[in-house]
Amino acid sequence: MGTAFDLADPRALRRASRSGAFAGVTAGLAPGYVQGNVCILPRAFAGDFRLFCERNPKPCPLIGVSEPGDPRLPSLGEDLDIRSDVPRYRVFRDGRLSEEVTDIRGLWSADLVAFVIGCSFSFEEALADAGVPLRYVAEGRNVAMYLTGIETEPAGPFRGPMAVSMRPLKAADAIRAIQITSRFPRAHGAPVHIGKRALIGIEDLDRPFAGDRIEVRPDELPVFWACGITPQAAVLRAKPPICITHAPGHMLVTDRRNSEWALS
Amino acid sequence: MGTAFDLADPRALRRASRSGAFAGVTAGLAPGYVQGNVCILPRAFAGDFRLFCERNPKPCPLIGVSEPGDPRLPSLGEDLDIRSDVPRYRVFRDGRLSEEVTDIRGLWSADLVAFVIGCSFSFEEALADAGVPLRYVAEGRNVAMYLTGIETEPAGPFRGPMAVSMRPLKAADAIRAIQITSRFPRAHGAPVHIGKRALIGIEDLDRPFAGDRIEVRPDELPVFWACGITPQAAVLRAKPPICITHAPGHMLVTDRRNSEWALS
Repeated sequence: MGTAFDLADPRALRRASRSGAFAGVTAGLAPGYVQGNVCILPRAFAGDFRLFCERNPKPCPLIGVSEPGDPRLPSLGEDLDIRSDVPRYRVFRDGRLSEEVTDIRGLWSADLVAFVIGCSFSFEEALADAGVPLRYVAEGRNVAMYLTGIETEPAGPFRGPMAVSMRPLKAADAIRAIQITSRFPRAHGAPVHIGKRALIGIEDLDRPFAGDRIEVRPDELPVFWACGITPQAAVLRAKPPICITHAPGHMLVTDRRNSEWALS
Repeated sequence: MGTAFDLADPRALRRASRSGAFAGVTAGLAPGYVQGNVCILPRAFAGDFRLFCERNPKPCPLIGVSEPGDPRLPSLGEDLDIRSDVPRYRVFRDGRLSEEVTDIRGLWSADLVAFVIGCSFSFEEALADAGVPLRYVAEGRNVAMYLTGIETEPAGPFRGPMAVSMRPLKAADAIRAIQITSRFPRAHGAPVHIGKRALIGIEDLDRPFAGDRIEVRPDELPVFWACGITPQAAVLRAKPPICITHAPGHMLVTDRRNSEWALS
């Protein structure tokens, strides 16, 4: 079966995920549209998790929350069904990865609440448009991610270190990137650090916690943004009986445009 | 004679400069109001100098130009008289400092054109308001200034290296400072460089070209902004028969508010 759907259309992509025709990574697809990190939790954990996100808006910018038991998120897509529209899911039980699936209709229940959190794809598109080079994107690799010594503001059982993504940039590009990403508060916003890794408690740039290692060249600065894996790490520590997330890189594609939520 | 004028009122300050009652530095005076670098040139040089400023808007943001021979700049102050309203002037002949005076009524002629260029005081106020610490201001010292290996875009006889000012800041403050100063394009705007001095051709941070040396602490980054001494250096190279500037720190105080020209 070929790709019988339009990779540029968020509705078509979601329908393809829903039918099983698509289960791939979403980087570069539906350009111009917001993609989101997904975290589905039991109702008993939802209040504290919402508070955790609200207290840590840079790593956890909330862009959508479902009603308990309701799989729809109409503000992100009229037809959106969180049980089927993510290309690939990860299911965690008691804080440990249990399986990876392409559909969670069989796991959904009236007790679950879905959270959607903004993602750096939104600002990466704006960076590319402005001519700021992102080598890992050009090389088809993942951004390098690290755990830091910066503690998140806890809420109930949710706590832990802030995770960051790192992009090596020349100084003039770093300055431009700070200006541009400041316009995207719902996609982690401005960087949280620039320069020496040790000042935020990162031991070794060559050993990322997730993603791919990338060289910082002598004429570059490492620039660090708060990262959407922060809430996942906090959730796994909290060990809810069940937690369902998107699989890395397999994001929820929404009907909201990046430009809608950009500050002028 | 005491200070019989209001140090917070730009009109009162200009009147005091005009009468000779004030001839001091203007840092911290008339808070909230734009101060400017002044450069007065013979008409024959004015066209190229205007072009030089327009081609190099970061070091030379033009905020006012007089009609030839007309000492008024009504857009900067209804009563403003450029022959008397700067607290202290420097007179250069053939590119060399000839004298320092508090009034240039005797030197003014129908052949002169006055240029006013924005100054970093405008954004320093915004940085202070945002809680970004500026140690040299707190210590009553001048900002450190350097010549770089960055060449300006030449225009006629005006050419030469871009000068920069340097402020040591912690990473989070540097990020905030980039956001804030981006809002002030008429006061040099965003930094031109951050991090390694050698990448912009500065040999030794401990030996500024002008201003006072300042330590960059281990948890700080040097942040470099285009500087208003750039046009002075270019003018001195061009060796006009006469050139009159403000004396360092003795700026023209205008009636325009910093907030009027700040981007939202």
